[in-house]
Amino acid sequence: MNYTKINGGVCAPKGFRAGGIHCGIRKNHTKKDLAMIFSEKPCSAAAVYTRNKVLGAPIIVTRDHLRDGTARAVICNSGNANTCNSDGVEKAELMCSLAAKALGIDSADVIIASTGVIGQPIAMEPIEKGIAALAPALTPEGASDAAEAIMTTDTKLKECAVSFRLGTNAVTIGAIAKGSGMISPNMATMLSFITSDACISSAMLGEALRAVVDDTYNMLSVDGDTSTNDMVSIMANGLAGNPLIDSKNEAFDAFVGALKIVATEMVRMMAADGEGATKLLQCSVTGAPSKETAKKVAKSVINSSLVKTAMFGADANWGRILCAIGYTDAEFDIGSIDVYISSEAGQIQVCKNGFGVPFSEEKAKEILLRNEILIDILMKQGEFEATAWGCDLTYDYVKINGDYRT
Amino acid sequence: MNYTKINGGVCAPKGFRAGGIHCGIRKNHTKKDLAMIFSEKPCSAAAVYTRNKVLGAPIIVTRDHLRDGTARAVICNSGNANTCNSDGVEKAELMCSLAAKALGIDSADVIIASTGVIGQPIAMEPIEKGIAALAPALTPEGASDAAEAIMTTDTKLKECAVSFRLGTNAVTIGAIAKGSGMISPNMATMLSFITSDACISSAMLGEALRAVVDDTYNMLSVDGDTSTNDMVSIMANGLAGNPLIDSKNEAFDAFVGALKIVATEMVRMMAADGEGATKLLQCSVTGAPSKETAKKVAKSVINSSLVKTAMFGADANWGRILCAIGYTDAEFDIGSIDVYISSEAGQIQVCKNGFGVPFSEEKAKEILLRNEILIDILMKQGEFEATAWGCDLTYDYVKINGDYRT
Repeated sequence: MNYTKINGGVCAPKGFRAGGIHCGIRKNHTKKDLAMIFSEKPCSAAAVYTRNKVLGAPIIVTRDHLRDGTARAVICNSGNANTCNSDGVEKAELMCSLAAKALGIDSADVIIASTGVIGQPIAMEPIEKGIAALAPALTPEGASDAAEAIMTTDTKLKECAVSFRLGTNAVTIGAIAKGSGMISPNMATMLSFITSDACISSAMLGEALRAVVDDTYNMLSVDGDTSTNDMVSIMANGLAGNPLIDSKNEAFDAFVGALKIVATEMVRMMAADGEGATKLLQCSVTGAPSKETAKKVAKSVINSSLVKTAMFGADANWGRILCAIGYTDAEFDIGSIDVYISSEAGQIQVCKNGFGVPFSEEKAKEILLRNEILIDILMKQGEFEATAWGCDLTYDYVKINGDYRT
Repeated sequence: MNYTKINGGVCAPKGFRAGGIHCGIRKNHTKKDLAMIFSEKPCSAAAVYTRNKVLGAPIIVTRDHLRDGTARAVICNSGNANTCNSDGVEKAELMCSLAAKALGIDSADVIIASTGVIGQPIAMEPIEKGIAALAPALTPEGASDAAEAIMTTDTKLKECAVSFRLGTNAVTIGAIAKGSGMISPNMATMLSFITSDACISSAMLGEALRAVVDDTYNMLSVDGDTSTNDMVSIMANGLAGNPLIDSKNEAFDAFVGALKIVATEMVRMMAADGEGATKLLQCSVTGAPSKETAKKVAKSVINSSLVKTAMFGADANWGRILCAIGYTDAEFDIGSIDVYISSEAGQIQVCKNGFGVPFSEEKAKEILLRNEILIDILMKQGEFEATAWGCDLTYDYVKINGDYRT
């Protein structure tokens, strides 16, 4: 299957309009803080949510709205997570009905998300005015504005789109995302909104999303903290005109392939732009005795504060990698494991069968000074593999998250 | 039971001698790096070890030596962890036999521990000379020298002792410990050596140690990284003259009580002196539906990078606490949880039944500027409780662990 990366983000698929404005949710901030995405036609829709027991009010409302597997719009604000507020659900519902009214659709077809400080009541006045101004101004060129409006401490806008053919039909998937951090730091909330013009049932859309999320968004870790408001949603409006995908056929596999490219791209962008990050870390595990073990080992390494600080310091302190593998909560043989570290500057083996091997510290330093580091772990005890993405732990992470909320 | 804190560390119990010297394991360092503890009489002995699958060679050797439940000496070096070296076990055995020979005891009665860089062959020459010099120089006043010799990035020496009466006999327990960090940073290795003059069987000694470790040492977290070389050992030589404790009777309970005080003191010292720490954090959970849940919730909060950075910034960002409670891998009701934050400067409630409650930010700041912060979580859904200890996450943690190994 040929997949082509194209421009246009969430508006690359046919029939989608988007936009983003500053409505003033946080005083003394001028950043865009309200985003909308709208489909001309009704969409199959699905989403996956945080597993945190504390659920943001928008998560509760979206989950309810998506029970029927359909949606037509996304509304998302930054600056306030609308979480742990006793009036949170009520206000999230109100935001949906305001958006629905402005767009002339049903309130139950609105996906809502919020990101920001938790436990502070959300002011409805700027949102009400914002929705009234934003809804009529949505355009097919507005994807980047929407991507910008959902950003918090993100330093880079995150969007991408991929196109592929199903028979004679061109099908496109687009996405935007925000990574970890807040202007007033609070949650490492991860939000991603995906659009497509594919014709696919909501059941199959959900299957595709869950299959891909497990290997991509769920393998991203900036600081191990799982937000109360994490969400990835997808809407597909069918305008590509392909025969309806309603079973796990070849077209489904092609769709999943494209979705995985989009998701991986979003995850890499979020990892590289983690709070305070100077480096993207990718840890790939192969030869694991089970998929679960492969995932756990890759995440254990990516999550280790000691590995993350070593990478920040460009220090090939591979003992920390082996240590993090060792405390993974899974059964495997540590004695057969090889570890390689690489970047564009080359590759070194640091560990063979669980023991250190000599390497040039000079070469290691050269490799680790690059901004994208790969850690390859060969377990040599099975057929399973997994990849996790993260970033280094830096002074700026502490600065961003240690500053007082004002 | 009256427990009295006394001076003397591991030499406070009758019949123990200790010492610590600089033998030169790491070039260009002048810090003491070799410690010994010796009992005049044979001891019942027990230990608990890291659960990391990567085991330091000293752990493998000590586990073997303690299979018979007896020991008479501890030898411990800092500067090299003797881990992931193909000749590691051989060298650890050699260190034990050198120590045994110098002390005139059996090699199988030596407990060995090492802490430092992993994956670098350990030089035996300085250790051989060091043991020969140190063994004859052990004294009942040498506890602090031993405590100093096991330190790495620790900034404070950690020792304590507690005395209590069993009938007419005074019984004493002493301990030294090293916390998290290395001069050449590598592992947050936690080592603690405990001595006692109690007369207690090795089986009961093991029971007591395991019971106490679970609620103390295992509830300490500086950065979530479990070292390859963690160990807590205890030796009891019987010189207190109390009737042998060989069942779970009242005397056993009294012994466990004293051991818990000693262990808690060590853990608090290690938490307060965590790498880069400016604050000791204590998280107490009450009203949990199970002991396991209480522990998991307390540790989840103590481990959260976002909570830790907020505490560093003296920011009462309680949403992060609730978030960390929420992603704990355990079943409970988030909707009944209250959270309080306190220090010597006072107490505030920040959350009631899962929702935020208004509080004075000024008062909160005043409380959080102190160097010992208590986070109290009332789950109100059971009878179980647990406490975890940790520290804030600071620029210095990144600095200490990000610097290049040289």
